[in-house]
Amino acid sequence: MLKVGINGYGTIGKRVADAVAAQPDMTVVGVAKTQPNYEAHAAVRRGYPLYAAIPERAPLFSEAGLELAGAVDELVAEADIIVDATPSGIGAENRSLYESHDTPALLQGGESADVADVSFNARANFDAAEDADYARVVSCNTTGLSRVIAPLQEEYGVEKVRATLVRRGGDPGQNTRGPINDILPNPIHVPSHHGPDVKTIFTDLDIDTMGLKVPATLMHVHALNVTLDERVTAAHVQALLEQENRLYVIPEGMGIDGVGKLKNFALDAGRPRGDLWENCIWGESIGVRGRDLYLFQAIHQESDVVPENVDAIRAVMGLEPQDESMRLTDDTLGVGI
Amino acid sequence: MLKVGINGYGTIGKRVADAVAAQPDMTVVGVAKTQPNYEAHAAVRRGYPLYAAIPERAPLFSEAGLELAGAVDELVAEADIIVDATPSGIGAENRSLYESHDTPALLQGGESADVADVSFNARANFDAAEDADYARVVSCNTTGLSRVIAPLQEEYGVEKVRATLVRRGGDPGQNTRGPINDILPNPIHVPSHHGPDVKTIFTDLDIDTMGLKVPATLMHVHALNVTLDERVTAAHVQALLEQENRLYVIPEGMGIDGVGKLKNFALDAGRPRGDLWENCIWGESIGVRGRDLYLFQAIHQESDVVPENVDAIRAVMGLEPQDESMRLTDDTLGVGI
Amino acid sequence: MLKVGINGYGTIGKRVADAVAAQPDMTVVGVAKTQPNYEAHAAVRRGYPLYAAIPERAPLFSEAGLELAGAVDELVAEADIIVDATPSGIGAENRSLYESHDTPALLQGGESADVADVSFNARANFDAAEDADYARVVSCNTTGLSRVIAPLQEEYGVEKVRATLVRRGGDPGQNTRGPINDILPNPIHVPSHHGPDVKTIFTDLDIDTMGLKVPATLMHVHALNVTLDERVTAAHVQALLEQENRLYVIPEGMGIDGVGKLKNFALDAGRPRGDLWENCIWGESIGVRGRDLYLFQAIHQESDVVPENVDAIRAVMGLEPQDESMRLTDDTLGVGI
Amino acid sequence: MLKVGINGYGTIGKRVADAVAAQPDMTVVGVAKTQPNYEAHAAVRRGYPLYAAIPERAPLFSEAGLELAGAVDELVAEADIIVDATPSGIGAENRSLYESHDTPALLQGGESADVADVSFNARANFDAAEDADYARVVSCNTTGLSRVIAPLQEEYGVEKVRATLVRRGGDPGQNTRGPINDILPNPIHVPSHHGPDVKTIFTDLDIDTMGLKVPATLMHVHALNVTLDERVTAAHVQALLEQENRLYVIPEGMGIDGVGKLKNFALDAGRPRGDLWENCIWGESIGVRGRDLYLFQAIHQESDVVPENVDAIRAVMGLEPQDESMRLTDDTLGVGI
Ligand SMILES: NC(=O)c1ccc[n+]([C@@H]2O[C@H](COP(=O)([O-])OP(=O)(O)OC[C@H]3O[C@@H](n4cnc5c(N)ncnc54)[C@H](O)[C@@H]3O)[C@@H](O)[C@H]2O)c1
Ligand SMILES: NC(=O)c1ccc[n+]([C@@H]2O[C@H](COP(=O)([O-])OP(=O)(O)OC[C@H]3O[C@@H](n4cnc5c(N)ncnc54)[C@H](O)[C@@H]3O)[C@@H](O)[C@H]2O)c1
Ligand SMILES: NC(=O)c1ccc[n+]([C@@H]2O[C@H](COP(=O)([O-])OP(=O)(O)OC[C@H]3O[C@@H](n4cnc5c(N)ncnc54)[C@H](O)[C@@H]3O)[C@@H](O)[C@H]2O)c1
Ligand SMILES: NC(=O)c1ccc[n+]([C@@H]2O[C@H](COP(=O)([O-])OP(=O)(O)OC[C@H]3O[C@@H](n4cnc5c(N)ncnc54)[C@H](O)[C@@H]3O)[C@@H](O)[C@H]2O)c1
Repeated sequence: MLKVGINGYGTIGKRVADAVAAQPDMTVVGVAKTQPNYEAHAAVRRGYPLYAAIPERAPLFSEAGLELAGAVDELVAEADIIVDATPSGIGAENRSLYESHDTPALLQGGESADVADVSFNARANFDAAEDADYARVVSCNTTGLSRVIAPLQEEYGVEKVRATLVRRGGDPGQNTRGPINDILPNPIHVPSHHGPDVKTIFTDLDIDTMGLKVPATLMHVHALNVTLDERVTAAHVQALLEQENRLYVIPEGMGIDGVGKLKNFALDAGRPRGDLWENCIWGESIGVRGRDLYLFQAIHQESDVVPENVDAIRAVMGLEPQDESMRLTDDTLGVGI
Repeated sequence: MLKVGINGYGTIGKRVADAVAAQPDMTVVGVAKTQPNYEAHAAVRRGYPLYAAIPERAPLFSEAGLELAGAVDELVAEADIIVDATPSGIGAENRSLYESHDTPALLQGGESADVADVSFNARANFDAAEDADYARVVSCNTTGLSRVIAPLQEEYGVEKVRATLVRRGGDPGQNTRGPINDILPNPIHVPSHHGPDVKTIFTDLDIDTMGLKVPATLMHVHALNVTLDERVTAAHVQALLEQENRLYVIPEGMGIDGVGKLKNFALDAGRPRGDLWENCIWGESIGVRGRDLYLFQAIHQESDVVPENVDAIRAVMGLEPQDESMRLTDDTLGVGI
Repeated sequence: MLKVGINGYGTIGKRVADAVAAQPDMTVVGVAKTQPNYEAHAAVRRGYPLYAAIPERAPLFSEAGLELAGAVDELVAEADIIVDATPSGIGAENRSLYESHDTPALLQGGESADVADVSFNARANFDAAEDADYARVVSCNTTGLSRVIAPLQEEYGVEKVRATLVRRGGDPGQNTRGPINDILPNPIHVPSHHGPDVKTIFTDLDIDTMGLKVPATLMHVHALNVTLDERVTAAHVQALLEQENRLYVIPEGMGIDGVGKLKNFALDAGRPRGDLWENCIWGESIGVRGRDLYLFQAIHQESDVVPENVDAIRAVMGLEPQDESMRLTDDTLGVGI
Repeated sequence: MLKVGINGYGTIGKRVADAVAAQPDMTVVGVAKTQPNYEAHAAVRRGYPLYAAIPERAPLFSEAGLELAGAVDELVAEADIIVDATPSGIGAENRSLYESHDTPALLQGGESADVADVSFNARANFDAAEDADYARVVSCNTTGLSRVIAPLQEEYGVEKVRATLVRRGGDPGQNTRGPINDILPNPIHVPSHHGPDVKTIFTDLDIDTMGLKVPATLMHVHALNVTLDERVTAAHVQALLEQENRLYVIPEGMGIDGVGKLKNFALDAGRPRGDLWENCIWGESIGVRGRDLYLFQAIHQESDVVPENVDAIRAVMGLEPQDESMRLTDDTLGVGI
């Protein structure tokens, strides 16, 4: 059993912890948190040993009636691998801690690419992590783009990708983030940094992206255009995408006309936290004009990177090959609709 | 096993169906739906026989690959009791159908009080439903107010209640409802109809309410003021409210400063659909000035009436007395934090 | 003085009335309204004779203390031309009324193209309205696209346009419209109808559009990609667009990073109702990759069609040639920043 | 002519500058800004001499093509009185600068009461500022409460005020502020600090307040309950409030059912920036139960304190008595609907 420690138990960290706990070949040896809030209580209830991410704050935990297993460096020492899910930029600061214990680690998409040896997406470049000690699981948006580009490229060849990313302003619990009533070109510079980030996975891809931020919390939505190398039919593309386990092509007639109903659908299906690990592509939106393919997909920013983290652990530790890892992850979590 | 039919399988209906299915003394004999959308598919997946609420639309279901068990009148005939969870006003129209089959029924809070023989809240007036064939489970807001008023009245006596109801504009999936960026006095007339609705439960209560609608979807929030008959301490009130199983007093220090984090908390706790069946009262907000008690509570409009419906079934059918019914409902669903 | 009647005095109608009133060659002979609400009071305060759009409702106006000049057919008889600014679909119904009085009319973008003899944009096809009696001023989005495409096409040639339209859910006063917390692919089919609508202005253009709706009220934002016939620099494009009086290229360094600040800017500038008649293009966002041009523009849905209506009146009535009309409109209103 | 300097030219500062410029007995000698953004350009366009609030940043202004008249201390030296409209807490820091020049100053509601010699509301305690050098114009919410409490107290006597303040999350341009989809009890402690703040104006008032924050930007809405000393009719109260020039009682039948339409109404009326300097009380909402009065009012946070600042200048400088000052302010600005 591989011993996995999670540093940073927030939106991403708590989901990765649960996903790791569901694997037959891994176990959660502990999670590190900065504050004894409701998430800390939930961690304890789930049986995860709790570590203080900031040692000086340890007393706050005992005051809150939460027993600590130790401080974060003890977790790093104890673990075979760390999943760092701290806020953007903190992961980079933490790398030296991991190095000092010779503990490999995963970093998240909020870090810049050069913080890690490799940027990782299970579908697109699993094997690239083979020799890496530090792998960066790319951001929710890059993950979402990579998963849909990979099969298109393999099947038809891709001349150019143009994507407009209509991004949620904050996650549901982030009540200090805006905007409240605005549409923000964000970043204002075009093409945005999202394209180059996708190129950490597909080195030679021609891709231009534009990003916006809007007052919504549930999911991002991508308006995607891919100019393919050959003419195809929408039906052929739909069939291709339906074969991918981490893509959910929403069937016409389901009455799911937006992101709110999509989340209801996930909650009705009993998904933990209503998570949608899959890209959700509206079947009706798949349209073709000449060699230009268009589609809308919704990306659940809180969870799409979760199966990727599990696979990245296996890739970095050399536990399983790509197909076997992805199959195992998907089976244990219930990925694939 | 009492045979329960659900007519109207939307936000409330689907939750009531699952709650009934979890009871040892009841079973879901079927749910009636108007359209073969994602909720219909979920009903089938959960094993609930599906009936066409509008018989002429039956072919749409087969086209969607959904097998029907029949039309709604067959469900009414088959059931010992119907829970009507159709949109406001439709329940009133449906009552004659239920009467024609001599099938008792529950109606929901969207109906006016005179559509039923009695208005029902499990904590406050369970026994009033004993001889009723048609009971109305009061609205989410009235349920939320009743649950907190009952113990205050019993323990201290209530001179007057003043409540401002800051209501969500629509449920998460209702994407055509607004407002987007507005605060609406709604209804504009003050005191609002919510007060009189509470008086269908507490006949002699002095209560004035004011309602507003805001651009949020997750929960309602009540700013509550109760002038008690005696002076009390905040600590005493808090202890009193903490004894109630359907009130959750959010402990200080949990870092739950709003409704978004509250829902995260419920999702982390593994609640189905992230439901919060309990009134959620912020412990820190319980304040006393003289005989005036103040507090904030959040009410999960999609689910707080669900345990009430289960109890109302038992009350109308004479299955169990109040305490036993509420205990059973809470145990099976997991109500009580 | 050309006598202009306005049928439908809402968001668009009231602005067109004020714009007409500001012209030296036209006068507002009356506005027709359905209800005596605050807008009706404002019309009277501005001195516009008020007509009942629905004759049976005339008594409501007198009850509200508003004197009527007559019913809508009298307005049609009195006017040389009608600007119909009624809700989508009503304009089509009204056409026969205008025909019965031999009164030419403008219709708005909510109507389908075949309701009018011609679709109109002042910059792109002014002369096409010369022989028309019924001209449709294209929608806010189509107007916004046309204004930026025209100079690009003339200067560089356009191979293909791809635009993602991130649309506001409702206007600021439309408090029943949603979504509250959602991102809606809308229409779900891709390419959307917006592209074909642009082709009513540019017959041979190759254009694909994708539309979304988000919880914001102030302006639409377009993420625009134009593949040009030749390679250009961003600076050259910026200079080109800055020459256009109905395009405002927001200078870098103004600190206007979204639509909210843009509206503040307009209000600070003393614009009536804070209107932004110009497309607002973020200068920093103008980016070029090969022959691909990218930019973000904000479109003020409530007002960008207003100068177009004034010009369309002149075009249909043969009052002035294109350049003279646009110059006159812009000078009197203050268009051009 | 009294020379007024404005330090902090943001939401409040720019409005106060325009209001001062409209007075016959005052002139704007300059405004101090920290950055050369769109507001700085607008200041220059309006002819206000521009000073650098942070001297080291002066070069940024020249780079942006904006000529500076000097640094903020020169403005303080030049002015007879300073209106400090910097962000909360900065005013307190600035007081020593004003003192060092013996320049009296107004501070805004974001400062704590003890930063100034007196807290000020024109209607309720104008004369209290007579001997003060530093007066704090109370916050938008306290101003709104004070204006409606004063006449009620004078006419009927007030036993107790209970107010729920449903506050906008941020101003329209503040795109980093949330919440996006939440309702926040804020502050969580009840009664909130707003009540004590009102008591800086009405020392002996019995008032309890509860505050919330919601995802809206346009105005605050107060759900107000006042227990009067005597029984009254709603009509009598309405007539009383209609006499107050800074209260606008929205007539029934105007179709103004929320804050969005209220702002449209102000924009249609040609108000600068769509400002509503008056409390806007919904006439239909004025309701009476025994001695309990209820009403809803909307408070335009960006502008209601603007006439109060003008009056506070006169009060502190001893220019005019209360009635004359308020009349002058209202006449020049156009306050009173
Ligand atoms: N939320 C998303 O949408 C999303 C999606 C994909 C990737 N990511 C990336 O995942 C990473 C984590 O984001 P998140 O959304 O989970 O953030 P979060 O704020 O929800 O969680 C971060 C957690 O780290 C803790 N933390 C803060 N400082 C710490 C420290 N010094 N040491 C240990 N823990 C610390 C916080 O208390 C919190 O529990 C970021 O790189 C982010 O960019 C986020
Ligand atoms: N959603 C809430 O916040 C909430 C809270 C408490 C009570 N209620 C009350 O519960 C009732 C149901 O509300 P909801 O929110 O679940 O509505 P909903 O719209 O989510 O669900 C209603 C369901 O009834 C179906 N339906 C429509 N017409 C029907 C008919 N003629 N016959 C059978 N089914 C029909 C709809 O297709 C839908 O599936 C209403 O009275 C409402 O006021 C709702
Ligand atoms: N608001 C926008 O964003 C926008 C932008 C561009 C074009 N348009 C188009 O302009 C037209 C008007 O839209 P709007 O936003 O001004 O609508 P609106 O609802 O604000 O105004 C329409 C007005 O017409 C009145 N009306 C309704 N029925 C009528 C009838 N039978 N006869 C006369 N008047 C009637 C209404 O009372 C209202 O005053 C539509 O075609 C719309 O698609 C709207
Ligand atoms: N906006 C409101 O709703 C509102 C309502 C009533 C009272 N107030 C109070 O008015 C004051 C100003 O608020 P605002 O909303 O206008 O803020 P704002 O942020 O819109 O404007 C403040 C201005 O001060 C400038 N500034 C920042 N630091 C400065 C410094 N050191 N010296 C000089 N200028 C500096 C900023 O650049 C900005 O232009 C605060 O006390 C606030 O609490 C605000």
